[in-house]
Amino acid sequence: MASGYKVADYLLDRLAQIGIRHLFGVPGDFNLYFLDHVISHPVIQWIGCANELNAAYAADGYARVMPASALLTTVGVGELSAINGVAGSYAEYLPVIHIVGTPALRSQQAGELLHHSLGDGDFGHFSRMAKEITCAQASLTPENAAAEIDRLLVAALYQRRPVYLQLPSDVSEAEIATHSGSLALCQPMLSPTSLQAFIDAAREKLQPARRVAVLADFLAERFGARESLNRWLAEVNLPHSTLLLGKGLLDEAHPMFIGTYSGAASDSQVKEYIEDADVLITVGVWFVDTITAGFSQHITQDNCIDIQPEQVRIGRKVFSQIPMVAAVQALHKLCKSLKNEWQPPVITYSPPKTPTYNLLDQNAFWYHIQHFLRPNDVVVTDQGTSCFGAATLKLPSGCIFIAQSLWGSIGFSLPAAYGAQLAQPQRRMILLVGDGAAQLTIQELGSMLRDGLNPIIFLLNNHGYTVERVIHGPQQRYNDIAAWNWPQLPSALGLEKPAFTCTVTQVEQLQQVLAQVENIAQLAFIEVVLPPMDTPELLKNVAKSLQIRNAAL
Amino acid sequence: MASGYKVADYLLDRLAQIGIRHLFGVPGDFNLYFLDHVISHPVIQWIGCANELNAAYAADGYARVMPASALLTTVGVGELSAINGVAGSYAEYLPVIHIVGTPALRSQQAGELLHHSLGDGDFGHFSRMAKEITCAQASLTPENAAAEIDRLLVAALYQRRPVYLQLPSDVSEAEIATHSGSLALCQPMLSPTSLQAFIDAAREKLQPARRVAVLADFLAERFGARESLNRWLAEVNLPHSTLLLGKGLLDEAHPMFIGTYSGAASDSQVKEYIEDADVLITVGVWFVDTITAGFSQHITQDNCIDIQPEQVRIGRKVFSQIPMVAAVQALHKLCKSLKNEWQPPVITYSPPKTPTYNLLDQNAFWYHIQHFLRPNDVVVTDQGTSCFGAATLKLPSGCIFIAQSLWGSIGFSLPAAYGAQLAQPQRRMILLVGDGAAQLTIQELGSMLRDGLNPIIFLLNNHGYTVERVIHGPQQRYNDIAAWNWPQLPSALGLEKPAFTCTVTQVEQLQQVLAQVENIAQLAFIEVVLPPMDTPELLKNVAKSLQIRNAAL
Repeated sequence: MASGYKVADYLLDRLAQIGIRHLFGVPGDFNLYFLDHVISHPVIQWIGCANELNAAYAADGYARVMPASALLTTVGVGELSAINGVAGSYAEYLPVIHIVGTPALRSQQAGELLHHSLGDGDFGHFSRMAKEITCAQASLTPENAAAEIDRLLVAALYQRRPVYLQLPSDVSEAEIATHSGSLALCQPMLSPTSLQAFIDAAREKLQPARRVAVLADFLAERFGARESLNRWLAEVNLPHSTLLLGKGLLDEAHPMFIGTYSGAASDSQVKEYIEDADVLITVGVWFVDTITAGFSQHITQDNCIDIQPEQVRIGRKVFSQIPMVAAVQALHKLCKSLKNEWQPPVITYSPPKTPTYNLLDQNAFWYHIQHFLRPNDVVVTDQGTSCFGAATLKLPSGCIFIAQSLWGSIGFSLPAAYGAQLAQPQRRMILLVGDGAAQLTIQELGSMLRDGLNPIIFLLNNHGYTVERVIHGPQQRYNDIAAWNWPQLPSALGLEKPAFTCTVTQVEQLQQVLAQVENIAQLAFIEVVLPPMDTPELLKNVAKSLQIRNAAL
Repeated sequence: MASGYKVADYLLDRLAQIGIRHLFGVPGDFNLYFLDHVISHPVIQWIGCANELNAAYAADGYARVMPASALLTTVGVGELSAINGVAGSYAEYLPVIHIVGTPALRSQQAGELLHHSLGDGDFGHFSRMAKEITCAQASLTPENAAAEIDRLLVAALYQRRPVYLQLPSDVSEAEIATHSGSLALCQPMLSPTSLQAFIDAAREKLQPARRVAVLADFLAERFGARESLNRWLAEVNLPHSTLLLGKGLLDEAHPMFIGTYSGAASDSQVKEYIEDADVLITVGVWFVDTITAGFSQHITQDNCIDIQPEQVRIGRKVFSQIPMVAAVQALHKLCKSLKNEWQPPVITYSPPKTPTYNLLDQNAFWYHIQHFLRPNDVVVTDQGTSCFGAATLKLPSGCIFIAQSLWGSIGFSLPAAYGAQLAQPQRRMILLVGDGAAQLTIQELGSMLRDGLNPIIFLLNNHGYTVERVIHGPQQRYNDIAAWNWPQLPSALGLEKPAFTCTVTQVEQLQQVLAQVENIAQLAFIEVVLPPMDTPELLKNVAKSLQIRNAAL
């Protein structure tokens, strides 16, 4: 083996340059040589996962709290196992660098009958599949490696989406001329005339308004507008809200934060402020069926100023080449000059009532979780009751909230929490996951234990797919799952580091346990037994609308 | 909801007609209405799995011992989670009917912003991905449903490969005019002149030969030639062998069965009979890198009569339109008339030596497994040490052997064993799986327990990816896995049905346990602790060749 600086080293150095510190994945015989470079890299740490889908979810969770993330799999079997996770990152705009160890170039060129292939000598199948769910693809050669690696990383960071990088086992080991320069990142185009025209039109729109509100969503987070958005809302008293997908983007402790907007399923105050506004400013908003209770938002385009990543729309008029942050900053300035003209909002916050019974149900559970939360926690939820229950939590300042509400792949949350906690070990990690979802990806509990992480995991055991029961077939056998002995899982999946484990069935027990685990240094796994047909109110409304839409009868 | 005969019913009746009795999958909100029909169907039984990849593996295992299998997932998240399993079925020629519950037609046509989509209104992404790994695709409408269902089932059975069927939630409930007729299956074309030309050429080739041997592989199994092949070999004394991928196809108790052929890594007798034959008849053979120790077979095309599913090749001459079974039958007849001219083979079988020590290593383990096997067992192995160790077993008559040696997706074996045992509950099921592989798909142990199955599971615990250690990086951290408490897993993943569980570290213990579980009625889970760097001899040779080929230095 020649010494010197290799393609593998170049790639790893570039990953480190864009802020990546961990590489998630599973070894395979086409990526072992590359892994040697990973192990010896001074910055990038190898995080071996129990399987590839879990690794992809972990990388997704990591990218939600870091500039980007990286995922390593082997060709065919590995990359296809991960592909659902990568598709989720694509749908929800997370820059994940998916590196696939492939056979040596000459084996591919010869069309050899290799394991992990479809046996037809065509090595293009998987990159064609990846093309549907990544924003750029490349197959490295010694000649194109530097240029293609740079192109892909720039594309991922600019478009906030996954890229697909095939690294043949021999190319990984090829020497490369060092490029020690920094990576020039792509900036969105800004047209000053378009921006000025937008400002003029916005002033015209906002001036006569009496009631103005702001609704923000996940794309504001993804395209870097969090800070400028929160600065604006801190300075100008505007009632504001997010959709579930963007929850955690705005400071929910702010007195003008009115709660999560969910179309017809919203709390009446949220609904009123958002839907009855004279002008509603939407920032990075997507109205997805599940989080709008089936497109039940009553919002007319004519009343909206809609800010998207690269353009703004006022009513039906589009202003192109305005990056989101520039638009937010312009509206911030404008609103400051106009705010005295506007009706001062009166927001009331009625905290949920203390449950007076000892039966542990959804209502009581979420009440106590609300009081358990602390500033800067990371709260990760899965689809189903956990996510819809958490939607109504009022997050303390600085909390990060993670839910995959557009792609909605159950089982996502446990590995995503693993990835996010590796990225942000200084924060408290709270994972809320139902039993149906947890079964899909439970292996990563073992990785959390191996790595000595201390998430506080609430396993909401309601004996099956309750979210599905509410949509259809409440008593049908297909909504049952295999019964597991949940409290045994941490000790079954972790030999070395003991976990705190318990089952709670009553409110008092829950209260005691919450006090016990508040500052726990070890992994806490709390099975919370809940009635199978009990659901958060929001989910009932959402499910009803989905039921009608899916049946279409 | 209208009553009457629906598209869902038609599809299920067709599945039953082609011999399917179980439907594997995971419920999702776009397939719940269809699931109502499944639950009430008189023949098809719903098998809910813990996740979609496991369901796909289970369906694959089922299709290996049944005419075909069926898999149900929901759109996007579900189908992509399963896609690696379906790709494996494509690579290894298993007819799996993959049914995907998709959004209602009008939602798709309107390009709605639905969960489980990429959010871009394009509902064609996933069928384009499926096109790479299935042999036919369809999206059902009320109008095309009958024709498209029939087309896909015929294609799957004819090509022995998966098909992809999108079933929109509203189309499932659409009424359909009943077609109670039987399904007309496609037959391969037979050209009588081509067959005669082949027979004449084969006679010319075989007549002067002195040493003739037969090497068969998995495609002979898939294209229905098992029976005619075994009849031929029972009647004509020809030394014969299979590759690992086709193991179990031939009766290994037959005195002329010489063992598994693995190129340069073969036992010397096998190598000699196969490579030194004057004429080698290959039936459904593919020389894949991993099972030939890196294409180390010394077999010249000129010496071969090569039978493939629809054509035969003698030397370099191709005879088209000859179905495999017809070719096998023709050679059977020809060989009968010629056999007296041929040198009578002298096959010696030297049974492995009794280990005289008490340390449990690979050698001792496989020795005792050899003696544990009984006729008609199903033996399922994963990639890695379990598969390469099992390669040298001499299977009793009637055994079925399952290994996924071409696609080689680790974690395949446990769910595949689950599927195969549901299909063949009357046979004893023996699963041999390493710890590294078992971690990927362990959830399905819970499904086995829920359904009261009684596989005998040997969990070969050698503390990580030993197969990878042999290829590269024996001491590297990336070949370690999280340490699990294996004997606790059955009780953690099964609340209702207790399992027999134990750990063995010595030969004597293994012997005792084998006697205990021989006729066990409950699930048996035996952790077999083996040295991390100890491997079956065959794997050492194979790994060495892969190491050289992957590095290409």
